[in-house]
Amino acid sequence: MNNPPVSLRRTSFRAFCALAFAALPLLGFALGQERFVTFAPDAQSAALVAGGAAAPLLVDPADWPGVRRAVGDLQADVERVSGLKPVVRSADGTTAQFAVIVGTVGRSPLIDGLAKAGKIDVSGIAGRWEAFLLQTVERPLPGVERALVIAGSDKRGTIYGVYELSEQIGVSPWYWWADVPTVHRDTVHVRPVRLVDDGPTVKYRGIFLNDEAPALSGWAQEKFGGINSKMYVHVFELILRLRGNFLWPAMWNNAFNDDDPESPRLADEYGIVMSTSHHEPMNRAQQEWARYGKGHWDYAKNAEALREFWRVGARRAKQYELITTLAMRGDGDEPMSEEANVALLERIVADQRALLAAEANPGVTRIPQVWALYKEVQDYYERGMRVPDDVTLLWCDDNWGNLRRLPTAAERQRAGGAGIYYHFDYVGGPRNYKWLNTVPLTKIWEQLNLAWQHEANRIWIVNVGDLKPMEFPIEYFLALAWDPAAWPYERIGEFSTLWAAREFGPEHAAEIAALVNGYTKLNGRRKPEMIAPDTFSLVNYREAERVLAEWADLRTRAEKVESALPAAARDAFYQLVLYPIAACANLNELYVAAGRNHLYAVQGRTDTNAEAARVRRLFDVDADLVRRYHTLNGGKWNHQMDQAKFGYTFWQQPPAEVMPAVSVLRPNAGPVPALALEGRPEGLPVWGAPAPKVPALDVYSQATRWVELFNRGDTAYTFTATADQPWLRITPASGEVKATTRIEIGADWAAVPVGAPDAKVTLATSAGATFTVTVPVVNPAELRPGSFDGFVEIDHHVAIEAPHFSRAIGDKLTEWRTLADFGRTLGGVTTFPVLAAERTPGGESPRLEYDIHFFSAGAATVEFHVAPSLDYQPERPLRFAVSFDDAPPQIIAIGTDPNQWEPWGTAVGEGVRRVRSTHQIGKPGRHTLKVWAVTPGVVLKRIVIDTGTARRPGVRPSYLGPVESPRAGK
Amino acid sequence: MNNPPVSLRRTSFRAFCALAFAALPLLGFALGQERFVTFAPDAQSAALVAGGAAAPLLVDPADWPGVRRAVGDLQADVERVSGLKPVVRSADGTTAQFAVIVGTVGRSPLIDGLAKAGKIDVSGIAGRWEAFLLQTVERPLPGVERALVIAGSDKRGTIYGVYELSEQIGVSPWYWWADVPTVHRDTVHVRPVRLVDDGPTVKYRGIFLNDEAPALSGWAQEKFGGINSKMYVHVFELILRLRGNFLWPAMWNNAFNDDDPESPRLADEYGIVMSTSHHEPMNRAQQEWARYGKGHWDYAKNAEALREFWRVGARRAKQYELITTLAMRGDGDEPMSEEANVALLERIVADQRALLAAEANPGVTRIPQVWALYKEVQDYYERGMRVPDDVTLLWCDDNWGNLRRLPTAAERQRAGGAGIYYHFDYVGGPRNYKWLNTVPLTKIWEQLNLAWQHEANRIWIVNVGDLKPMEFPIEYFLALAWDPAAWPYERIGEFSTLWAAREFGPEHAAEIAALVNGYTKLNGRRKPEMIAPDTFSLVNYREAERVLAEWADLRTRAEKVESALPAAARDAFYQLVLYPIAACANLNELYVAAGRNHLYAVQGRTDTNAEAARVRRLFDVDADLVRRYHTLNGGKWNHQMDQAKFGYTFWQQPPAEVMPAVSVLRPNAGPVPALALEGRPEGLPVWGAPAPKVPALDVYSQATRWVELFNRGDTAYTFTATADQPWLRITPASGEVKATTRIEIGADWAAVPVGAPDAKVTLATSAGATFTVTVPVVNPAELRPGSFDGFVEIDHHVAIEAPHFSRAIGDKLTEWRTLADFGRTLGGVTTFPVLAAERTPGGESPRLEYDIHFFSAGAATVEFHVAPSLDYQPERPLRFAVSFDDAPPQIIAIGTDPNQWEPWGTAVGEGVRRVRSTHQIGKPGRHTLKVWAVTPGVVLKRIVIDTGTARRPGVRPSYLGPVESPRAGK
Repeated sequence: MNNPPVSLRRTSFRAFCALAFAALPLLGFALGQERFVTFAPDAQSAALVAGGAAAPLLVDPADWPGVRRAVGDLQADVERVSGLKPVVRSADGTTAQFAVIVGTVGRSPLIDGLAKAGKIDVSGIAGRWEAFLLQTVERPLPGVERALVIAGSDKRGTIYGVYELSEQIGVSPWYWWADVPTVHRDTVHVRPVRLVDDGPTVKYRGIFLNDEAPALSGWAQEKFGGINSKMYVHVFELILRLRGNFLWPAMWNNAFNDDDPESPRLADEYGIVMSTSHHEPMNRAQQEWARYGKGHWDYAKNAEALREFWRVGARRAKQYELITTLAMRGDGDEPMSEEANVALLERIVADQRALLAAEANPGVTRIPQVWALYKEVQDYYERGMRVPDDVTLLWCDDNWGNLRRLPTAAERQRAGGAGIYYHFDYVGGPRNYKWLNTVPLTKIWEQLNLAWQHEANRIWIVNVGDLKPMEFPIEYFLALAWDPAAWPYERIGEFSTLWAAREFGPEHAAEIAALVNGYTKLNGRRKPEMIAPDTFSLVNYREAERVLAEWADLRTRAEKVESALPAAARDAFYQLVLYPIAACANLNELYVAAGRNHLYAVQGRTDTNAEAARVRRLFDVDADLVRRYHTLNGGKWNHQMDQAKFGYTFWQQPPAEVMPAVSVLRPNAGPVPALALEGRPEGLPVWGAPAPKVPALDVYSQATRWVELFNRGDTAYTFTATADQPWLRITPASGEVKATTRIEIGADWAAVPVGAPDAKVTLATSAGATFTVTVPVVNPAELRPGSFDGFVEIDHHVAIEAPHFSRAIGDKLTEWRTLADFGRTLGGVTTFPVLAAERTPGGESPRLEYDIHFFSAGAATVEFHVAPSLDYQPERPLRFAVSFDDAPPQIIAIGTDPNQWEPWGTAVGEGVRRVRSTHQIGKPGRHTLKVWAVTPGVVLKRIVIDTGTARRPGVRPSYLGPVESPRAGK
Repeated sequence: MNNPPVSLRRTSFRAFCALAFAALPLLGFALGQERFVTFAPDAQSAALVAGGAAAPLLVDPADWPGVRRAVGDLQADVERVSGLKPVVRSADGTTAQFAVIVGTVGRSPLIDGLAKAGKIDVSGIAGRWEAFLLQTVERPLPGVERALVIAGSDKRGTIYGVYELSEQIGVSPWYWWADVPTVHRDTVHVRPVRLVDDGPTVKYRGIFLNDEAPALSGWAQEKFGGINSKMYVHVFELILRLRGNFLWPAMWNNAFNDDDPESPRLADEYGIVMSTSHHEPMNRAQQEWARYGKGHWDYAKNAEALREFWRVGARRAKQYELITTLAMRGDGDEPMSEEANVALLERIVADQRALLAAEANPGVTRIPQVWALYKEVQDYYERGMRVPDDVTLLWCDDNWGNLRRLPTAAERQRAGGAGIYYHFDYVGGPRNYKWLNTVPLTKIWEQLNLAWQHEANRIWIVNVGDLKPMEFPIEYFLALAWDPAAWPYERIGEFSTLWAAREFGPEHAAEIAALVNGYTKLNGRRKPEMIAPDTFSLVNYREAERVLAEWADLRTRAEKVESALPAAARDAFYQLVLYPIAACANLNELYVAAGRNHLYAVQGRTDTNAEAARVRRLFDVDADLVRRYHTLNGGKWNHQMDQAKFGYTFWQQPPAEVMPAVSVLRPNAGPVPALALEGRPEGLPVWGAPAPKVPALDVYSQATRWVELFNRGDTAYTFTATADQPWLRITPASGEVKATTRIEIGADWAAVPVGAPDAKVTLATSAGATFTVTVPVVNPAELRPGSFDGFVEIDHHVAIEAPHFSRAIGDKLTEWRTLADFGRTLGGVTTFPVLAAERTPGGESPRLEYDIHFFSAGAATVEFHVAPSLDYQPERPLRFAVSFDDAPPQIIAIGTDPNQWEPWGTAVGEGVRRVRSTHQIGKPGRHTLKVWAVTPGVVLKRIVIDTGTARRPGVRPSYLGPVESPRAGK
């Protein structure tokens, strides 16, 4: 027991981690915290559980009821792990080899006594907000040989300390909400430790239960009789276990205070700071106005009634720990009337504060207050409306995860500070996204890092919809809110693996982390609710096939993990990993099948019908997947997946799940051969179609091109393919075509002559028709493979993944950083630090350079796919610049106005903002594309250069753009 | 035998008919001709067939081979009827009680001998074109007691006379092409007759086999090994039996002369004048150029090769009776290049005529030649291009049955005269119509009457597609071409009944005529190929329901007739009547079901799925109906219904039959009540919908309004409807809602107080939801029923069928005439004569007046539905004028430019041109709408007055417009 206890402060976490992870396998417990609990006792450790007995948990009766309640959770957690229920009691007269002593500085005589006796040092936490200490102490009390002392600077500090121990002994914060199993332990030891956490970076960290019908509401009705205190205690406990402290309650058809008076009382007892959503002022729910309001929700016409309504809410601010929302929007979260103006809103705020002063606290600046600058309310601010300095300004995202505004340097000086309101779930345009987790951690980090750096750290609140499908991002959000410095971008993978290891054990943790981040990356490209039969191209760049292959890979791997997991873990695995992957894979496959059905119907393919049957089958599979979710753990989560995801016709959700419409085709009699070609939507023969031709084969990628022989008739035919060049490879070169036969056309490049002209493939069929397909070939003398380490223009375009720059040239003010995985197809590239000054592009200023060989010359359009970030700093719109070679840089702005449907709606729907510039490529040959830094906050993901003309297609339609172009380098 | 023979001349036909039809039941034989054949012998008649013997058929060996061949047909026809094959022989040495003597004046020594002997008087036909005489003659020859002499002025005159007898003995011209059965007769007598037909009004009367794949071509391949002479002889015979003489042969993948040399030889022998289609000059098919042409189809660059190609065709003009098409279009019936100009085209025509002079006849003006002014070729003419005076100008319709141009008074003086090219079938935009007969006789008459009156009577040629589904309009077209004066508009019904009686006997003739004209009227509203799931409104004016009821009525009646017909008639009945009705009824029902499927999916109705199932079932029914067609008469017509009609995505036909896509809906769990309302597409509840309200009830129509309770869940619920007024009638007032329950809301008008305000219906459901529907009521003191014999504004609109005018005021220059059935919903009104001068509207000039009571005042938009006629006279566009009360008339032009897609495409697609005027209704009360005549050629069908505003809907979306408004008169 002479070893010095491990001392850990958050601020030193990074250095620690480098050591810890070098020495230890990744551990899933207590994400990011050093593990002091061990199930393999050693000489230094003491028994929390051993020999059929559990150590007592000591808590002072004078401590906060919320602390004593949390100790009760710890008691239950020890029993969950060991089957042994420890005694919870006061310290008086306790004798034990080992005990856990819990208490709050200044509230617990027990803890204050230990501090006074020099047994613990609370100097690192005392007076701080939500700080805590875990320390092993020898002989803390008479009769107690050793103890783990958990001391908090305040009520929640203590509680977080208690849950730290719970998590370390193997109880996930999600043990209830996601059925994460505990591993049974007969022996649980505590090693010497001294862990000091000096509290959070963000003061209020919470979630918003919103858009809660049909899933959460249906489930709560069945399990608890409604969204009431019986349900809320589970939410409160979860928030605390995740070190959150703040909640906006469900409000669609619910009124937190009015529905069940136990709800606010218990929230306060647990330690949850309550508020009301951005458009519900003065601690009163919209539903309360619906129930009790008199007259119009219009302060210009009905001020007296509104004030009396708000007076009730003002009193609540005296009773409980709340943050009071000020000002107002129109009823039902709509904009106020056009007549509403700045002067009126300022009067409303003044009157509201007068009510707070009268009813809650004459020192009104000591009442936490917030003004949510949501949508048009932000415009009032920008037009000059101000609130008193003590009121927190809550900046909002565009509901699609892009922050609309962050504090300027001047605004950072305000006493009330700033916060952000963010979304993982949304009801609104361009479309609801309510079903599943669709926001990758990469995106969350990039935007929350901006918030942190711009000191919007008083409140972080995130709309989590029904809560349930958002387990993983909720935890990430609250972890970042606690300590953003601990979780730089580069640790996203590590965070994910730690999380997966805690929930499912270390063996599959890396794979599970990859699966969870994998599916959110794919969902982040386009919300499932926005996918349509024509989203992914069926004819260009094998796009739909590639997307389905990505989903199928995730699904196969997830199913493999599932079969390797113990049975006890499978309910949790289904909720957290397998269901979203399987259901999204199924959804994507269904939409592609529907798209094929539509395309094939136009082309006249007999397998139109097979695709229709596939759509119908997959629609049933979707129901089966939901059914399994609803029967997990004895039906515990019934209704949680009631959210319809198929059948959207406008932004609002459909009233029931509706399968995409599919056609049925009546095959013609006999064999009727027809041809489809890569790159073209039509089936041949058809009126007006040009002669058959596929995109070029090239020596650099050595990729193949496809054609498909298909049947418009009910009888099979045979075909034989012949090439006019001996080095052309056709697979298969003959066969039977019952419905569709794909034929891949490639080349034996060793045999292709340099400068070879177009080749031809002739497809002769047994039913008379013959098709001759032109196959262009790119194998020029001017650019041999291996000679040039840059991209090559093929098929009249160049597609580049932004991280594949030839050179990234920074300087001491501006650094280029690759954000791995922060892209639709690969990653992103951006500049740090985000508070850096704006740069003037040109000369030797920071830039990315891409070397490219063009075979054509003339006009080229460059399309950049950038993150759809908004102009979050007034007076400094997000920009970058572009040039070829030594041409002067063209400055390009990327921001959209989220108050206008377009181009904002397209950008958020696609997950990228597409911006374009036009250039002249003087002559064929080598050129360098330069992308210049201007403002921070721009994340470049892809570059697509279109060298097509009116006479020859360049970039063909697709959702993600062409696959990356080949490089001629080695 | 002393009774004077009946003398009949076409020109006296009308007066005769008045007598004949007063005295006789309608007879189906020899449409419009007096019946001289009888199966009930009397003292005056002589036996063509009797006592097991048939009278001999005498024809001179020197007569035209085509005449002798036709006599062979007569021989076969007698055998078809009686089972007895008459002898065909020369007159020499014949002894007979009765004989038929056939011959051509100036060609048959037999006939010339009879004339010379004074036995017959050929003065009425000699020297005329295609005139003929049928006359019973006593003792015409030694040994022959009596004869029916059939004498023609020329080859075809004689042939038409022969077929006149065939038809009278009971052989339909369609006996082969439509399997029309003959009635067996043991006795066939000929009554004394003298029938003189002085020949046709239109010199060349023919059809164009076109757009002949897949139906005609597939059938001909199976039955004849291709479109060859074996098939064509059936076409030749049909044309002659219908008194036609002209043919444009199939040309998609066929070359009449080149495919089978017997084809032109036999055409000439039969007496068919051949030509090539409008874009195939010089008697050579497009396919011949494809097979033998050298270089480009471009006279500017390749004149020599084109001349040599045409030289072959010029020689054909010497060999056979042809009409040579001059000039040229681009290859494949496309416009020529932009460079082509008037001078070049005039040079082409001159060179072509030089070839004709050199190869066929130096007197080139004696060679029948035609210049088809198709599409852009007409523009060359309008820009000043001219051809020699002897060349016939062939004016064209817009491919949709509307004549683009008719000769001006000056053009009528040309020696070559003018003709028209018309369409019953078309491949082109806005969409192909190839499947079935879609052109009502009313429409054909209205346009062909214009052609006749404007003396475009040298050639009438009509595109009949595959021939087969166009039997009825082909016969009408050729009958009108023979003698338009005989068939005024008012005799359309009579023509139809005569036709039906000939094919199926007199008993069901009137009903069959009504069925055939009924289905073409419905098809004339919109081609089946253009109907879509959203064509007919599912929520307004009960439109889709009314359309389906019309089709169901036709189908039920057709099936009833079928079951009453003898078995031998059923194949013909299926082809000519039942199939088109059943298949179109099925198609319309299918599209409405698809529309409901789409609407219900959006509304969230569980019976979305029932509609999907219905669509799939009806798609199978469509195949069943085709299958029956293809198995008629031992499979004789296999492939004739191969034409796809479902699955159009642009103007060109789909490569296979494709069912409209349908959705499937997954019902929510439990009962989920929802509401749909007449007049509104949404299902309630839905985001953003206004409160439930139906269109007004009114005391004049006393019609009901509907709402539908439906289910979004899988469990039935019950409802109870209650009214807030005792006189409201709700049916049913309670019940169970499993899927959808329609509830009709009406009033007990005897009990409704005058001036009653809006009523309310409350629908309470067992599943919690309650809906309250507002029901406006119109029962004002100011306008009691019976007080005003005019239309009443209800639901903010007035809809009027044009024939329901209050007054039609004409004068001695301009007469108003109602064209019964010439409308989408009722009839048309137009002015005659069509050559009348233009009128200046106003004062006492000719007008229609409609009395209307308006409840509202202010702006009103009047929409007129007029026939989509074109400005067929240069310098005189089609116009009419409109005014209210004493306001000055506003002149409205109705013509569209068929060279532009819009508004022409919408007008022809809808079967009406919609034109609008706006007016101010000064104050509520009685007003008179006046529609003034300006030019002839305008046919007014419907008037829809919209008095809606931005705040209240007026006319709601529908295809046909609102149902006619009520009138307040008795």
